[in-house]
Amino acid sequence: MSPRHSAAEAARTRERIVRAAVLDASRLGLEGLTVGSLAQRLDMSKAGLVGPFGSRERLLMAALEQACQVFRAAVVDPLEGLPPGPERLARFIDGWVDYLADCPFPGGCFLTAASSELDGRPGPLRDRLREIVAAGRRALAAEVAAAQAALPGPHRPAEEVATTLVGLSMAANQEIQLLEDPSAAARAREAMRHAAGLPA
Amino acid sequence: MSPRHSAAEAARTRERIVRAAVLDASRLGLEGLTVGSLAQRLDMSKAGLVGPFGSRERLLMAALEQACQVFRAAVVDPLEGLPPGPERLARFIDGWVDYLADCPFPGGCFLTAASSELDGRPGPLRDRLREIVAAGRRALAAEVAAAQAALPGPHRPAEEVATTLVGLSMAANQEIQLLEDPSAAARAREAMRHAAGLPA
Repeated sequence: MSPRHSAAEAARTRERIVRAAVLDASRLGLEGLTVGSLAQRLDMSKAGLVGPFGSRERLLMAALEQACQVFRAAVVDPLEGLPPGPERLARFIDGWVDYLADCPFPGGCFLTAASSELDGRPGPLRDRLREIVAAGRRALAAEVAAAQAALPGPHRPAEEVATTLVGLSMAANQEIQLLEDPSAAARAREAMRHAAGLPA
Repeated sequence: MSPRHSAAEAARTRERIVRAAVLDASRLGLEGLTVGSLAQRLDMSKAGLVGPFGSRERLLMAALEQACQVFRAAVVDPLEGLPPGPERLARFIDGWVDYLADCPFPGGCFLTAASSELDGRPGPLRDRLREIVAAGRRALAAEVAAAQAALPGPHRPAEEVATTLVGLSMAANQEIQLLEDPSAAARAREAMRHAAGLPA
């Protein structure tokens, strides 16, 4: 096996482990993920599983980053090329609700679950999640402000609208995952559009 | 020791275990709670800890019920005697935000955390939590409908307003617990009052 071939193989192995870790962590929580059961499921040794990352915590960090990528690919990337404004915010909301209703994670929104799990557990995972969530909040408030600038007012403060949209995504996630309410996605879409001041 | 004395003692022991279990579960999740570390902290044997409940799962169920009691005592009980309507809904929102801002649980809202943790774990704990959350949702939508009946319209559907209020409580909980944002409680209060159609 040439060195290049073997590097590609190592990258594929790493990716396969991270994807499986995201699925386990979505069902069991990041801290609930056990190296033993993940290794067994992938038919690897524990050392072979953790080796590419150096530690269980770095494997969990890689899973957190991968989960963000999945969210971005589903909700943010499809907006590329659309200028900030009402149309872009409406498309963002549609993509967000679609993501919640037909979630790529078996346990529902990964970032919402990780936030509840990690908020009281100081450490690098919590620090990184806090950065990710805070950056997402800033980006969302900017999207809201850009849409408001092109819509008739009066408007609620963009920060408050961003909080309301994040909250509606969390409530919809609970209604879908825990309450199994078939009307949740449609209600969330209406409520988000209304909160954002978009035309009905 | 008389039998009556010993029954009272047993009830006090049970209560002491449940209170400690709620604190641990708030930080670590219900499934994260380990009998060994809880027993050590209470200076009891594992058998002595689980004995009064019959099983670890029933201990977790007792912790879930106790957490609901704590929420009710903080947010719902103070409304006793107030007739349904805008004043009662405003007081409910105030009490809810105060509960989130100065939370009796070390890890933030217990029911929000339990919902994220248990939604993908079938079993009696999830079933009971689902009942609790669904009943709370129905009660909240009824409070909203009663307030709307006494306020000038037009109104958003009461179910949608209930979803928005639940969502805002979850977003505020994240902003307080994970983001440590000092403006979170005031913003949530404003947004909840606005969503409920209450005068500013």
